[in-house]
Amino acid sequence: MGSGCELSMSQWKQVQQLEMKFLEQVDHFYDDNFPMEVRQFLAEWIEAQEWDVACNHEAMSTILFQNLLAQLEDQYVQEKNFLQRHNLKRIKQQLQVKYKTNPLHMATVISSCLREERRIIAAASMVEQGPLEKSMQN
Amino acid sequence: MGSGCELSMSQWKQVQQLEMKFLEQVDHFYDDNFPMEVRQFLAEWIEAQEWDVACNHEAMSTILFQNLLAQLEDQYVQEKNFLQRHNLKRIKQQLQVKYKTNPLHMATVISSCLREERRIIAAASMVEQGPLEKSMQN
Repeated sequence: MGSGCELSMSQWKQVQQLEMKFLEQVDHFYDDNFPMEVRQFLAEWIEAQEWDVACNHEAMSTILFQNLLAQLEDQYVQEKNFLQRHNLKRIKQQLQVKYKTNPLHMATVISSCLREERRIIAAASMVEQGPLEKSMQN
Repeated sequence: MGSGCELSMSQWKQVQQLEMKFLEQVDHFYDDNFPMEVRQFLAEWIEAQEWDVACNHEAMSTILFQNLLAQLEDQYVQEKNFLQRHNLKRIKQQLQVKYKTNPLHMATVISSCLREERRIIAAASMVEQGPLEKSMQN
């Protein structure tokens, strides 16, 4: 169970504070299907959408797909760092091609990644609680 | 012709100072064959190697390929930023697969990118010189 601090902290912020062995698990499910740049640059917006619902609603997933592309464009237009701008621009083009005929698939991928993150955060939290619980039993 | 300042400035530094219309040309030739992260993180080392020679020497290109992978690993091991570390680690794995049977091709790609950069820097420099030369003729 999360503390008050964790509840008010974005899920992505919690991910970044994980220990290396848990971070490495997160590493594995971010690839060209859902680049980590998108997760990081649009973190707040991503966590505010209902991806689980969108997985089963073509119209909703299409709107989310268009919104995501528009937000990526907003990001790279204002980005000062040449490398980041280059990456964001390429990612927008790649996602546009990848999901334009199947935005439902994008919703499924994002929904699944967020669920995996929550599972790993919970697992890390159990490991942290371990010694404390033991000390309370002594 | 470069000024003293340009001569002592790395080529990659000069690229980043280009105007947007020239930067966009550079954008186009950085992709998965030669990711811009590699160009940026190993800029000094990349510019110090003889890629033009390595294009025609299998043994030399193999050594450069191994060195490049080792340096990428050094970079991501010490990288504090989670997103950058994730990207560098993935890029190292992708390049390893892409060029392990053909390091000559990697040398050719890098050599060609560096040559294109020099061409664009020279073109930008001609545009800058334009008005000055005209004013000297008046």
